[in-house]
Amino acid sequence: MTKISKKNCVEILCIGTELLLGEIINSNAKWLAEELAILGLPHYRQSVVGDNIDRLKEIIQEASKRNRILITTGGLGPTPDDITTEAIAAAFDTPLEERPEIWEEIQKKLSSLGNSPAICNRKQALLPQGAQILPNSAGTAPGMIWSPTNDFTLITFPGVPSELKKMWTETAVPWFQTHLNIQDKFVSRVLRFTGITESVLAEKVHDLLTSSNPTVAPYAGLGEVRLRITAKGETERKAIQILDPYEAELRQRTGLQCYGSDEESLASVVLKLLREKGQTLAVAESCTGGGLGASLTAIPGASDVFIGGVIAYSNSIKQSMLGVSRDLLVRHGAVSLPVVSVMAEQTRIRFKANWSIAISGLAGPENNSESKPVGLVYLAIAGPDGCESHQENFSQTQGRVNIQKLSVVRGLDRLRLLLLSQG
Amino acid sequence: MTKISKKNCVEILCIGTELLLGEIINSNAKWLAEELAILGLPHYRQSVVGDNIDRLKEIIQEASKRNRILITTGGLGPTPDDITTEAIAAAFDTPLEERPEIWEEIQKKLSSLGNSPAICNRKQALLPQGAQILPNSAGTAPGMIWSPTNDFTLITFPGVPSELKKMWTETAVPWFQTHLNIQDKFVSRVLRFTGITESVLAEKVHDLLTSSNPTVAPYAGLGEVRLRITAKGETERKAIQILDPYEAELRQRTGLQCYGSDEESLASVVLKLLREKGQTLAVAESCTGGGLGASLTAIPGASDVFIGGVIAYSNSIKQSMLGVSRDLLVRHGAVSLPVVSVMAEQTRIRFKANWSIAISGLAGPENNSESKPVGLVYLAIAGPDGCESHQENFSQTQGRVNIQKLSVVRGLDRLRLLLLSQG
Repeated sequence: MTKISKKNCVEILCIGTELLLGEIINSNAKWLAEELAILGLPHYRQSVVGDNIDRLKEIIQEASKRNRILITTGGLGPTPDDITTEAIAAAFDTPLEERPEIWEEIQKKLSSLGNSPAICNRKQALLPQGAQILPNSAGTAPGMIWSPTNDFTLITFPGVPSELKKMWTETAVPWFQTHLNIQDKFVSRVLRFTGITESVLAEKVHDLLTSSNPTVAPYAGLGEVRLRITAKGETERKAIQILDPYEAELRQRTGLQCYGSDEESLASVVLKLLREKGQTLAVAESCTGGGLGASLTAIPGASDVFIGGVIAYSNSIKQSMLGVSRDLLVRHGAVSLPVVSVMAEQTRIRFKANWSIAISGLAGPENNSESKPVGLVYLAIAGPDGCESHQENFSQTQGRVNIQKLSVVRGLDRLRLLLLSQG
Repeated sequence: MTKISKKNCVEILCIGTELLLGEIINSNAKWLAEELAILGLPHYRQSVVGDNIDRLKEIIQEASKRNRILITTGGLGPTPDDITTEAIAAAFDTPLEERPEIWEEIQKKLSSLGNSPAICNRKQALLPQGAQILPNSAGTAPGMIWSPTNDFTLITFPGVPSELKKMWTETAVPWFQTHLNIQDKFVSRVLRFTGITESVLAEKVHDLLTSSNPTVAPYAGLGEVRLRITAKGETERKAIQILDPYEAELRQRTGLQCYGSDEESLASVVLKLLREKGQTLAVAESCTGGGLGASLTAIPGASDVFIGGVIAYSNSIKQSMLGVSRDLLVRHGAVSLPVVSVMAEQTRIRFKANWSIAISGLAGPENNSESKPVGLVYLAIAGPDGCESHQENFSQTQGRVNIQKLSVVRGLDRLRLLLLSQG
């Protein structure tokens, strides 16, 4: 067997037959892997198994031989399929015992949501003797941190991503920092880019991508690319001193294509720019159907800036609510520069907003034609100094929902660039 | 070791350090898992490893002991990181040999794209002695089908999803059908539920959850629970005959809480019900900011039914666009039954729609108060026979975006139930 020191080796095990049937995508493994990279913990393998107790026991025992830590997701629910805790205890011949404090907590949580605790929920209160509870502030099932031997620890999480993430941040990360001999301090920052493809960005910064400290890793999203910069140093301060010049260089080389960092989104950045100017925004959406408004209102405090909008999905509403003339619709069609410009201008006036974004396009798959193909989307931004409009040509292969999302991204970015150009 | 017959056991191994760093999501594993389920091939484990030759050799040797077939993705490119073929050959002490036909093909493909073949591309023409070429009509690197022993076969694919899918369909599936003794056919169906928690649903159907053929497995989403029913039989028809009565029983026991199946969503079901009645829908959204409209317009063909809506995010717009009186806002507040009812009624009238859904609530985290806590959301559905309104109390711990999404779910479900009650 390959001699890897077990020291600090971490492996991820995602449990769930729905994964083996291809019903859901394994987003938990991706998220955890990124988190482990930020912590600087060596991670060499991920596995997926189904809800089968014998196979689960087997893989746990295997993993215990080559790792310091095994992280599991899934199988902590109340149904017969949920066998993680039972399998782990059996893998180390340890009895399960009921923790009264967990059972009390479960009953309380379910009652506060207006649900009666079911008998099957009671097994969620069972842990192996000696296991530490990993509290779940976002859901019912707690996880656990358990070291069945002195050089192997299991950390279990539910499969629900929002619960996993909260529990990881609240309890697991502090545990790692206390219990593992993590020599280096790691600092990580994400820069966000839009209006540029991953390969063009990679070319602009190709020399920085091969840096070993900090590391610079690219991640592609929909209409956005991210670069994660991770620096290590003896202290956090030294790590930051290593990271800062790289961030500065990356921003300098990419200019306005870098729209923000870390938890920022295009929507939050646009709202922030408008808030600083004391200005307001309204929207007129056709093919995006409300997605632009939803992306803005996902951000707390949006009401300082965002007034509202019209989802002018049908042409009758473009006429009745936004004053688009029937003549314009007949001559140019709803998906056209003249119509989207009127939508933007009229929204700005009728909502008494400083700015407006209007979107009209063909998200598909229906209504594809040679003159107006699926993926053709018009955007207009109306502001104090006038209205500018743009044409986008998204690839049909993106599909309806991605074309809608990309339209929202481009609309927000156009406004962002206008606001920045005004200073 | 657990005695699983190797017979037809298939395992998936995805190779790539970008997966271990969490840079990309493992969509290939999901797609392959679904394909294996459709073929009825037993599939009990998936693994991910990085671009390290020793660990790759090790995991390949492990997998060869417990599987009939190992499918690999990734590591077939021309860069130093691409080591799959080399590792596989080394795992079975077999020399690599250059295949002149592959090298010729690679040179031709690259030239036709205007690229010169690089020296590093030459290694892509190396296969272990005895391996069969798996042609790649969508990219450069071919894969292979190789049986280093008489009861173990490796099938390798590039990591690029579009290439993998093509090669799978063109070559791998026919190979499976010819070479494997595929006994059972599998059929799977997903039932979708809302307005019920996972544990209460599990109790209603607890006896069915322990069935071995078909299997019935529950899993939870946001505001929804799903049951996956998977049946096996000698033929697809027999499998369906086994599945159908279980589906019927599940539907019978859960009644209206079962809202659809497979790829349906609440939005698509609501649109379908309205389309069948020849009726239309408009929306008025405050705290959901456009998310309700977006969920409806995500569905192709929504324009048959969905007219549009108002994102009445600020109170001034509730007044100017939806005729909510200032007096009502002062007396009851925007988040109240009277205001959301007027929003719904006025939207129905002004949009000339048969039905409308209005939502007004506190998504938080700001504006929390004892009388009106975060999570308090009012919904109103206005229709031909009048307007009904409802209060929801979502848990604050859900967070802003989940409260918005749950409001959309509840709004759609209320309309669905009304439409069904009308027959």
